[in-house]
Amino acid sequence: MLRTHTCGELRIENIGEEVTLTGWVQRLRDKGGMLWIDLRDRYGITQLTFEEGVTSAELLRQARDLGREYVIQAKGKVVERYSKNDKIPTGNIEVKVDHLEVLNPSKLPPFLIEDETDGGDDLRMRYRYLDLRRSPVRRNLELRHRMMRETRNYLDNQKFIEVETPYLIKSTPEGARDFVVPSRMNPGEFYALPQSPQTFKQLLMVSGFDRYFQIVKCFRDEDLRADRQPEFTQIDCEMSFITQEDILNTFEGLIKHLFDRVKGVQIETLPRMTYADAMKYYGSDKPDTRFDMRFVDLNDLVKDKGFKVFDEAELVVGINATGAASLTRKQVDELTDFVKRPQIGATGLVYARVNEDGSVKSSVDKFYSPEDLQAWAAAFGAKPGDLLLILAGAKEKTRKALNELRLEMGERLGLRDKNTYSALWVVDFPLLEWDEETNRYHAMHHPFTSPKPEDLMLIGERPGDIRANAYDMVINGVEVGGGSIRIYDRGLQEQMFSLLGFSKEEAEAQFGFLMSAFEYGAPPHGGIAFGFDRLCTLFGGSDSIRDYIAFPKNNSGRDVMIDAPAPISGEQLDELHIKMKDLPKG
Amino acid sequence: MLRTHTCGELRIENIGEEVTLTGWVQRLRDKGGMLWIDLRDRYGITQLTFEEGVTSAELLRQARDLGREYVIQAKGKVVERYSKNDKIPTGNIEVKVDHLEVLNPSKLPPFLIEDETDGGDDLRMRYRYLDLRRSPVRRNLELRHRMMRETRNYLDNQKFIEVETPYLIKSTPEGARDFVVPSRMNPGEFYALPQSPQTFKQLLMVSGFDRYFQIVKCFRDEDLRADRQPEFTQIDCEMSFITQEDILNTFEGLIKHLFDRVKGVQIETLPRMTYADAMKYYGSDKPDTRFDMRFVDLNDLVKDKGFKVFDEAELVVGINATGAASLTRKQVDELTDFVKRPQIGATGLVYARVNEDGSVKSSVDKFYSPEDLQAWAAAFGAKPGDLLLILAGAKEKTRKALNELRLEMGERLGLRDKNTYSALWVVDFPLLEWDEETNRYHAMHHPFTSPKPEDLMLIGERPGDIRANAYDMVINGVEVGGGSIRIYDRGLQEQMFSLLGFSKEEAEAQFGFLMSAFEYGAPPHGGIAFGFDRLCTLFGGSDSIRDYIAFPKNNSGRDVMIDAPAPISGEQLDELHIKMKDLPKG
Repeated sequence: MLRTHTCGELRIENIGEEVTLTGWVQRLRDKGGMLWIDLRDRYGITQLTFEEGVTSAELLRQARDLGREYVIQAKGKVVERYSKNDKIPTGNIEVKVDHLEVLNPSKLPPFLIEDETDGGDDLRMRYRYLDLRRSPVRRNLELRHRMMRETRNYLDNQKFIEVETPYLIKSTPEGARDFVVPSRMNPGEFYALPQSPQTFKQLLMVSGFDRYFQIVKCFRDEDLRADRQPEFTQIDCEMSFITQEDILNTFEGLIKHLFDRVKGVQIETLPRMTYADAMKYYGSDKPDTRFDMRFVDLNDLVKDKGFKVFDEAELVVGINATGAASLTRKQVDELTDFVKRPQIGATGLVYARVNEDGSVKSSVDKFYSPEDLQAWAAAFGAKPGDLLLILAGAKEKTRKALNELRLEMGERLGLRDKNTYSALWVVDFPLLEWDEETNRYHAMHHPFTSPKPEDLMLIGERPGDIRANAYDMVINGVEVGGGSIRIYDRGLQEQMFSLLGFSKEEAEAQFGFLMSAFEYGAPPHGGIAFGFDRLCTLFGGSDSIRDYIAFPKNNSGRDVMIDAPAPISGEQLDELHIKMKDLPKG
Repeated sequence: MLRTHTCGELRIENIGEEVTLTGWVQRLRDKGGMLWIDLRDRYGITQLTFEEGVTSAELLRQARDLGREYVIQAKGKVVERYSKNDKIPTGNIEVKVDHLEVLNPSKLPPFLIEDETDGGDDLRMRYRYLDLRRSPVRRNLELRHRMMRETRNYLDNQKFIEVETPYLIKSTPEGARDFVVPSRMNPGEFYALPQSPQTFKQLLMVSGFDRYFQIVKCFRDEDLRADRQPEFTQIDCEMSFITQEDILNTFEGLIKHLFDRVKGVQIETLPRMTYADAMKYYGSDKPDTRFDMRFVDLNDLVKDKGFKVFDEAELVVGINATGAASLTRKQVDELTDFVKRPQIGATGLVYARVNEDGSVKSSVDKFYSPEDLQAWAAAFGAKPGDLLLILAGAKEKTRKALNELRLEMGERLGLRDKNTYSALWVVDFPLLEWDEETNRYHAMHHPFTSPKPEDLMLIGERPGDIRANAYDMVINGVEVGGGSIRIYDRGLQEQMFSLLGFSKEEAEAQFGFLMSAFEYGAPPHGGIAFGFDRLCTLFGGSDSIRDYIAFPKNNSGRDVMIDAPAPISGEQLDELHIKMKDLPKG
């Protein structure tokens, strides 16, 4: 090695030793005949010193010529530090340098390589290799590494076997849009990159692997949002001879293990909430349960008092923003504007304050008597100082809007602390959802999800009411994982495809291999997949998954550092038997 | 769980327990009123028993209706086995069944699910999920899992951090052919799937990650051979502030760790051999050193005795096939035919036997005196009973042919035992190789490999003689890994690209981001990548990497199980801004 120690290693015990360090020049201070250099590597920072009159003039000149981010090798003696630095583990020592070599100089970086940088998003992405030098970014990837390691440790202990499934597979019409890969050897044909290894992990269960997992890249060619990337990582798992209960317990174990080992946090047993309850009480299938503020249905209390908005509404529903009565008129107006935004879409906001004397003052006092309002307060279990916020309208839309308002209030009231974790299982998802656009049912989870046997009789008349053996793990309002018990019977799988609008021929062409596999002794099985990027982001206390991906893509799916995608040569196109369509000019 | 125990778990200590097992019916024997079923799962086999007169008639009927590969759940009591089976860990017990449920029936499998199967390659690949049920195949993937786990354990202990690099990157003209992915969001542009994460791992070193690894899928669109797959797995590693010596030591440690933990085998310190010596003494840059049989150069001994073939040859070289003098004339003729095959290309084979009395009898006695032949024997260190095999011709071609003959003789003499391991480092590879076809130099390893500083002065006049800081790990004649110390200076990297025939503009367009990174404080670094499929194959004692891949592709790059690649829809093509070229008819 070009070093004897790393920059995070030297302590009081090393005083007197001759050492060689390598690293990057983080900072130089030159004052009163002393020169200090902070030398940085992945492991820490060590202070190097040079002193006029003691250090040779030549060496001092050499040191003064160094710039930020130069890569150097420094030899010298470890000495006790005069003014100690308690903030870093090497803060009790420094190295009196007697030999210096520049291993590689550096141009002035386009932004500061510090915890707080002056670089904008675009610049940092273009020079991602410099951005990755900053401690917060490096620590994110170190966290990710620990998360991977502990995931593997836990699953390995539980006898899961990691099996690599192929990346060059077949495009399927179900689900999101595929990335495809033209085949040179099979003209006119394409591979697809997997959106998940779903069918392969099920085949591994048919093979008897019993417990499979894989930390695996998946691909979706979708329009990108802040928390979406065209390639993302999943912890993908499947088990045989189990019930839903076994899966929930096993993966509750995983998440507890991760919180314990990676964060040193003990989390409670995960409560279970049905999808129906989640929608009813939180207006969301991924409720943020760090705070209560459950929805209260007011239909029975508010109708027929002459307030048309409520009278005509399918649903009148509200939340109790505990202790928020002190909000100013202006702040309440802001909330009204908030819920009226097009993406939220409420038509207005009714509020009622519970005053210190217990009286209730609302924005609809002319329709409701003090007794009516007292009944409202009672329905919310409201106390003096509370603020009731009420929306009305079509059921689904109103719940969604109230969910947004609830989250906004949680934020404003400081109830969404990133260091508090509240995890739960949402269970009993509907099997199907109706798609207005295509006028047909879609699988809510995916077409391989098993319906609840007790709901199967609904398949003819009310398929939309069939519940699935499907479950999501939700932490702090984020869906971190989801899965289901699978169909393992050919007949039922055929029925499912037919419900989803596949012809017999289409089903056979796309998934014949899987249905065929079910005829050769497929065991009962089920599984789950965790969004690993999102899980790391949650553990790291961030909102952006890009912070936890070494080389992310931007919203147009571009890697601006390497400048990909890019045109390819005519010969490449020829070999792949494709040509470009005429592109729109301009 | 649908079971209380697995099929590999029950022992004498469990006698008397009521248990529930699940698994596949491996075999039924029905004899003299007794019915035995071997129930199989991933963990083992347990014998179930039913007895006429004891078992209820209904249950017995049910059991007799079972077929091979049915998935069942069986409840019953663990009892001691009358005739014990020493071959399996559960061989001392059996389960007297009192309740049976068929979880899923099975059609008759298209081939036997046994260690020795009657299924041909094609059939087994089409029903790969059934082939994976066979113990030898399952054990291969279990071995692969252990190899992965132990690789991670070792590297994690050595402070390597696993970082995921992107799969959607940019196509480069260097190296093998890329698989490409048309971009929907960036019309006319393509991503490429990585042939290796080479540039990204180097950027991680520039970022200061210091020690990186990743077990990662890589892709090459090449015509396939038995040991090649379009997608394959690499253990990819990179280190900073190191010399070649540090890399060799670190990864020698990895391979020793793997042999120890996975095979229980201790291997010796790996010898180092220069590329020049490997070619000289073995005619190969991946010599099989399980046996000696080094090449002996006979140029000085055999010339000018009137034997035209030797006189005119650039090189006369041979091996001593120790103890092979007893080969019959017919066997020696076979060897002659072997070396004359077009793919080997020798024009003939000269042999000389050392008789029991020490005299030497050769196929060219009319040109060489007994004294001449004694001198030959001495050059080979040959003893009575040895057989000298000699080839002559152009240097490179003859060495290659003799390498083939040496391996063939090793095989015939039983010197290539799959359970003996001989590992070494081949070092000092040439930096460049001349390509006759394109009439230019190619990088022997890749364009980022650093030349040996002491050879740099050859760059102008004899670039072909420059040696690189490049190394391969070779085990039993298989190159399991290779790497190099990298260039980390922009100027040298530019020079390298220019040597390889890149214009300044091409180099900048393709690798500008990397050369730019070198200007911002790139540390000295180097790395290695192991072919993980091949390494597993070697550890498993097999010749075919397909045996160690869960879902491999065939020689046309097809997955015959899922039938991929496949045509995609016109809408998909439209969205991707491409169309098919007219395909050749027929």
